Amino acid sequence: MDSNSVGQIPLHQTSSRKRLDHKRDTICILGTGDFGRSLGIRLLKSGHPVVFGSRDPKNSALLPSGAQVFSHAEALKTSKIIFLAVHRENYDFIPALSNLLDGKVLVDVSNNFKMNQYPESNAQYLSQLVPKANVVKGFNTVSAWALQSGSLDASSQVFVCGDDNISKQLVMDVARSIGLSPLDQGSLLAATELENYPLQLFPMWRLPFIIMAGLTVFLFMYYVVLKVIYSYVIYNTDKTYQMVISIPNHVFPCVSLILLGLVYLPGVIAAFLQLYRGTKYKRFPDWLDKWMLCRKQLGLASFAYGFLHVFYSLVKPLRYIFYWKQVQYAASQVKKNTTSEIEMVWVWRGDLFYALGILGFFVFCLLGITSLPSVSNAMNWREFRFVQSKLGHVTLLLCTAHTAVLGWNKFLRPTAFKWGLPPGYMLAMVIPCIVLVLKLILITPCVDRMITRIRQGWERKRRDLDYSA
Amino acid sequence: MDSNSVGQIPLHQTSSRKRLDHKRDTICILGTGDFGRSLGIRLLKSGHPVVFGSRDPKNSALLPSGAQVFSHAEALKTSKIIFLAVHRENYDFIPALSNLLDGKVLVDVSNNFKMNQYPESNAQYLSQLVPKANVVKGFNTVSAWALQSGSLDASSQVFVCGDDNISKQLVMDVARSIGLSPLDQGSLLAATELENYPLQLFPMWRLPFIIMAGLTVFLFMYYVVLKVIYSYVIYNTDKTYQMVISIPNHVFPCVSLILLGLVYLPGVIAAFLQLYRGTKYKRFPDWLDKWMLCRKQLGLASFAYGFLHVFYSLVKPLRYIFYWKQVQYAASQVKKNTTSEIEMVWVWRGDLFYALGILGFFVFCLLGITSLPSVSNAMNWREFRFVQSKLGHVTLLLCTAHTAVLGWNKFLRPTAFKWGLPPGYMLAMVIPCIVLVLKLILITPCVDRMITRIRQGWERKRRDLDYSA
Amino acid sequence: MDSNSVGQIPLHQTSSRKRLDHKRDTICILGTGDFGRSLGIRLLKSGHPVVFGSRDPKNSALLPSGAQVFSHAEALKTSKIIFLAVHRENYDFIPALSNLLDGKVLVDVSNNFKMNQYPESNAQYLSQLVPKANVVKGFNTVSAWALQSGSLDASSQVFVCGDDNISKQLVMDVARSIGLSPLDQGSLLAATELENYPLQLFPMWRLPFIIMAGLTVFLFMYYVVLKVIYSYVIYNTDKTYQMVISIPNHVFPCVSLILLGLVYLPGVIAAFLQLYRGTKYKRFPDWLDKWMLCRKQLGLASFAYGFLHVFYSLVKPLRYIFYWKQVQYAASQVKKNTTSEIEMVWVWRGDLFYALGILGFFVFCLLGITSLPSVSNAMNWREFRFVQSKLGHVTLLLCTAHTAVLGWNKFLRPTAFKWGLPPGYMLAMVIPCIVLVLKLILITPCVDRMITRIRQGWERKRRDLDYSA
Repeated sequence: MDSNSVGQIPLHQTSSRKRLDHKRDTICILGTGDFGRSLGIRLLKSGHPVVFGSRDPKNSALLPSGAQVFSHAEALKTSKIIFLAVHRENYDFIPALSNLLDGKVLVDVSNNFKMNQYPESNAQYLSQLVPKANVVKGFNTVSAWALQSGSLDASSQVFVCGDDNISKQLVMDVARSIGLSPLDQGSLLAATELENYPLQLFPMWRLPFIIMAGLTVFLFMYYVVLKVIYSYVIYNTDKTYQMVISIPNHVFPCVSLILLGLVYLPGVIAAFLQLYRGTKYKRFPDWLDKWMLCRKQLGLASFAYGFLHVFYSLVKPLRYIFYWKQVQYAASQVKKNTTSEIEMVWVWRGDLFYALGILGFFVFCLLGITSLPSVSNAMNWREFRFVQSKLGHVTLLLCTAHTAVLGWNKFLRPTAFKWGLPPGYMLAMVIPCIVLVLKLILITPCVDRMITRIRQGWERKRRDLDYSA
Repeated sequence: MDSNSVGQIPLHQTSSRKRLDHKRDTICILGTGDFGRSLGIRLLKSGHPVVFGSRDPKNSALLPSGAQVFSHAEALKTSKIIFLAVHRENYDFIPALSNLLDGKVLVDVSNNFKMNQYPESNAQYLSQLVPKANVVKGFNTVSAWALQSGSLDASSQVFVCGDDNISKQLVMDVARSIGLSPLDQGSLLAATELENYPLQLFPMWRLPFIIMAGLTVFLFMYYVVLKVIYSYVIYNTDKTYQMVISIPNHVFPCVSLILLGLVYLPGVIAAFLQLYRGTKYKRFPDWLDKWMLCRKQLGLASFAYGFLHVFYSLVKPLRYIFYWKQVQYAASQVKKNTTSEIEMVWVWRGDLFYALGILGFFVFCLLGITSLPSVSNAMNWREFRFVQSKLGHVTLLLCTAHTAVLGWNKFLRPTAFKWGLPPGYMLAMVIPCIVLVLKLILITPCVDRMITRIRQGWERKRRDLDYSA
Repeated sequence: MDSNSVGQIPLHQTSSRKRLDHKRDTICILGTGDFGRSLGIRLLKSGHPVVFGSRDPKNSALLPSGAQVFSHAEALKTSKIIFLAVHRENYDFIPALSNLLDGKVLVDVSNNFKMNQYPESNAQYLSQLVPKANVVKGFNTVSAWALQSGSLDASSQVFVCGDDNISKQLVMDVARSIGLSPLDQGSLLAATELENYPLQLFPMWRLPFIIMAGLTVFLFMYYVVLKVIYSYVIYNTDKTYQMVISIPNHVFPCVSLILLGLVYLPGVIAAFLQLYRGTKYKRFPDWLDKWMLCRKQLGLASFAYGFLHVFYSLVKPLRYIFYWKQVQYAASQVKKNTTSEIEMVWVWRGDLFYALGILGFFVFCLLGITSLPSVSNAMNWREFRFVQSKLGHVTLLLCTAHTAVLGWNKFLRPTAFKWGLPPGYMLAMVIPCIVLVLKLILITPCVDRMITRIRQGWERKRRDLDYSA
C-alpha cells in the first residue's frame, strides 16, 4: 500500500462512519452476472444505494429495480466500496481504471472453476494489477441463491481476508448490514484457501471413504469365495443369487462393526500414549491426529452401513426364498409326521440376537442425531462427550455382543471354517474386541484416576511448573 | 418525518453513542403483556434499565423484578427508545402522548390475528397517529418464549424495518445487545410483509400439497376401481379390506415416484431451455421459476410417501392375511404331495426388487438428512449440488428400477390390464422415465460441454460482450 | 470498582476505538494450556497480535507460531485485555501482579471440575484478588476444540458477564472479531451460572428421565407377573424367554403412550385453568410450569420408546419362536384336514391395527424432525404451534386408536384379566383418553371461542383495563 492511500484512510473512515449513521454507503458492483445481481438485490433491500458498472450500461434489463447503471468509470466515482463480480479471465479491463481505484476498497468475490487453477489467488493477482486499491477477498463462499433467498435457508457466514484492516472492517460492516456474519480470516494470503473452499468436495470424507470402500470390496470378495465359489466347487450348486441380498447383508454389518471399532480405537490409543508419556502436553503423532479428525465421518459411515443392514434383514420374510424354504420345511414336517420340539436355546439365542441388534441400532441412531450440527451445538462440551464417548462405547458393546451371539459357539466347530477361512463376522470382531478390552483397562479405577489427572494438566515429570488450564 | 425530528437526531445520536459506551440505554416498554414482560426480562439481563409504562402502574405483580413501572407519560420521559407492546386495537391512547414521542424511536412489535386484517400495516398506521415519532417495525417475528428462554432454543433472527436509518440502527443495536441478530428489511413499507410473516402457515407447501393431495386421491380411486370394484364385478368377491393397507401401499410408492420425478423434471427442462436459447441471461418462464422454487417441498413429500411405503411393506409378514395365505399354501402343497421346485427367476427378481428398493430408500434418506438446514449450511455450494443433483438422480434411477423390476414383463401380458387400464405403477413410471432419458441426453459429453459453457456465462450470440461472473 | 479505574476508562475507551480501526488490539493470554493455545491460534488468525505470559517463557514449543512469549509481568504490559486461561487453584501468582493489572480488563475463562465446587464463582474470587482490575467472565462455555476448528462445526455463542460495561464491551468486540456471537449475561453475579453451565449434564432431562425409568420398571414388573409368573403358577410352563423381546415389546408401547399423554395433559390442564380463572394474567402453579417446561423431553422419550416398539415388532417374523409356531400351525391344519376359513373380522382388525400404528409412527417422526433446533428455527411461531399442537394431538389420537384396536372387545371378557389385573395397554390408555376427551371439550366452538379470547388478552373481570399484547 502506498503512502497516499494510508494518508487518505482516516478521512475515508471518518466520513464513512458519519455517513453510515445517516444513510447507508453507496455500493458499486462491477459485473452484472448472477452474483452481482443477487448482491445488488440484497444490498438494496437493506437500504444501500447500489450502482452497477457495466461495459454496456444500456443493456440492463435483468438488473434489480432501484439500482443505477453507469459505465465502469462513472460507477467507480460514486462509491468507495467496489465489488468486483467478474471472472478472473475478464480482469483485463481493470488496470485502465487504476487511477479511479486509488485508495478504494476493491472486494474480489470471484471463484474459479478448478482448485489451484492459477499459481496465485485471484485476489492477489488483482492486487498486483491495481496496487493502489485495497483489495479484500470475500463473499465468494456465499452463493447467489443464499443472497437472494435470505439467510434463513443458508449459512450466513462470510469469510473475509485482506491486508488493510480498515478496508476489511468496512467490508465486514457491509456484510453485517445485510444480515451476514463476517469472519476475519487474516491477510490476503488466506485468499487461496478462501478461493479453494467452494470447490472442495467433502475433503474430510476422503480417508474414511477409502477405508470404507476398501473394506467393502475386500469383504464382498471374501464372502463370494466362502458362499458362492465354495458351494460351486464343493456341492456344484449355483448360489450367485446370494450376491444380491444375502452377501451384502453379511458385508454391511461386518464393515459397520469394523468402522465403529476404528472410531473408538484412536481414543484408547491416545489415552495409553498419554499414560505412557505421563503428560498431555506432547503432540500426538501425525497419523493419530489425522485418524482422530475423521472419527465423525467413520462413525457416520458405520451408521450408514448399519442402517442398510437393518433394512436388508427386515426384508428377509418378504423374500421369495424365505417363503419357499418355510413352506418346504412345514411340508417336510408333516410328511415325517413329527412335531418338532421347540428348542429353548434357539429361542433365547435368537431373541437375544435381535434384542441386542435393535438396542445397538437405537443407541446408534441417538449418536447419529446428536452429531447433527444443530443438535450438537445445543449441548455443552460435557454433554457432547457423554453422548459421543459413553453412548458410543455402549453402541460398540451392544453391536459386538449382537455379533457374538450370532457366532455363539460356532468358532469351536471346524465346519464353520470353510477352506480353513474364518467367517467374516469373526474377522469383524477383532478390532471392536481390542477396543473394548483396552477401554475396560482404562476405566478401572486406578488407571482412570491417573488419566483424569493427566488430562487436568498434571505431569509426571515437572509437576511444580504446571498451572495451565 | 418533519424537519424538527431530523434536526434533533444528530444530538440524540451523539448522546446515545456516548452513553452506550458507559451504560446501556434505558428502554421503555408500553404494555405489560407476555411479550412486554419477556422483552423486559431479556433487556434487564443484558444490563439495560427497563421502565414499563402502564395505565395502572400499581397493578404490576407479574412484572420482572428490577424494572420500574410508571404511568405512560412518565415512562416515556425516561427513554429515547420505546417499545410498543400493545395490540393495534388499543393504539387509541397513543395520540394523546404525541408530544412526548416527538423525535423518539417508537418500535412497533405488534402482530395481528389474521393476515391482511387491516388496509395498512400496524406500523404505518402508528406512524400516521404520531407522525413526529420515528416508527420502526420489528421484533414481531420473535416469540415471547424465545426471548425468555434465550436464543439457544430458537432462531435469533430479528427483522427490522423503518424509514429513519438512525432509529433503525439504534433498534438494531438494542437487538444485538440482547444477543439477537437484527436484519434490516428496508423502509416501513416492508412492515406489511413483516406483520404477515408470523401468520403464515407453510406458504411454500401450498402448491406441493395440492399436487400431492390430488395425486393421492386420484390414484386411490384408480386402485379402488382396479382392485375392489373389478373383483366385485367380475368375481363377486368383497375386497374392501384392501383399502386399509394393500391399496395405500400401492398408492404411496406411486405418488412418491411421481413426486420424485417432478423434483427433477424442471431442472432438465431448464437445461434444455438454456441450450435452446444459447444463454443463461434470460429469465425462465414464471411457471418454471415457481416449480423450481418448490422442489425441496416436492422432494420431502416424496420422501414421506416413500417412508410410509417402506413400513407398510415391512409390516406385511405380520398381517393375518399374509399368515393365513402362507398356511393355506403350505397345506395345499402337502395335499398335492408335490414339492414345488424353486424358481430361480423368482429368487433373482424378488431379491433385486428389494435390494433396489432398500438402496433407493437409503440414498433418499441421505437426501433428506442433507436438506436439514443445519446440515446443508455446513456444506459448500458444490457439495450441496453434488448431493441434491447427483445423489438425487441416483435415487430416481434406483426407485424407477425398483418399480420396473416389480413390473418385469407384465406389460406384455394383456391380463395385467384390467378393463384395459394399466396398473398404477406403469402410470407412475412415465415422468421418471422421461426425466431419466432427458438427463441421459444432457450428460452425454458434447451436450454437457455446451451446457457447462453456457452456465459459466458464455453466450451463443454476443460472446464478445460477456465478462460477468 | 474504585474511583481510579472509573476515571481511567474513557481514556482507554477512546484509544481502543481508535486503535481498533487501524489495527487489532494486542491480546495477552496467561496460561499455555489447551484453551490458551487454541484461543491464541484463533486470535492470530483474525489479525490480533498475541502475547503469551508464561512462568517459563523458554519452554514454549507447543505455542502457535506468530505469538510472542514473555514472562507474566512483561506480557501484561503489552496489552489492555488479558485472558486468564489458568485453573483456579493456580490463581496464587495473580495478586503479585496486582499493580500491572490496574484498570485492565481481565477475562476469566476458567472452568471447575465439579458444580458449585467453591462458595463463590472463580470470577468473583479473582475480582477479590485483584480489585483494581475489571474482571469479565466469559468464553468458558466454548471448547478449545470449537475455537480451533472454526465456528462452522460448533456453536458460536459466547456468554459474557461482568460489572464494568466498557470492559464487557471490549471483550465482546474481541469475541465478535474472531467470529463468535457474544451474549451479555449481566453482572459478575451471573458468573456462577456461567461456570456451572459447562458442567451440566442434561438438566432438563432429569424429571422426564425419572418418570420414564419409573414407568418402565413398573410396567416391566407388571408384565413379568402377568406373563411369566402367571404362566408358571397356573400352567407350570417356563416363559422367562419372553423377558427378552415379548415383554419389552409390551412395555415400550405402553410407556410411549403414557409419556405422549403426559406431553399433552399439562396443556389441557392449563387451558381449563385459564377458563376457570377467566384470565391469562395469573401465573400457573409451579408444578404445572415445571411440567410444561419438560414437554419436549417427554415427547422425545415417548418417540424413542415408540421407535424401539416399531423395530421390536418388525423383527417378529424373523424370530425362531414365530417361525416354529407358524410351522406347527400349518402342520396341525393339514393333519386335521381342515382348510380354515378366512376370518374377515381378523383381517380388518389386523390391518387397521398396523395401519394406525404406522401412521402414528409417521406423524410422530414429523414431530421429532420439527423439534430439531435447525428445523424449528426455520418455522414461525404459528407453524411451530401447528406442528407441535395439531399434529401432536393427531399422533396421540392415532396411537391411542392403534392401542384400542389391539384391545378390541377384550375388556368385555373376564379371561383377559389375569388374577383380576387389567392388561398393561388398558392402563396405558387411561391418560391419553383423558387428554383426548378434555381436548374434545376444548375444541367445541363455544369453549374454543372463549379460550381464544382469553389468550388474546381478554379478561372476564376487568375488561376495561386491558390493552396489553
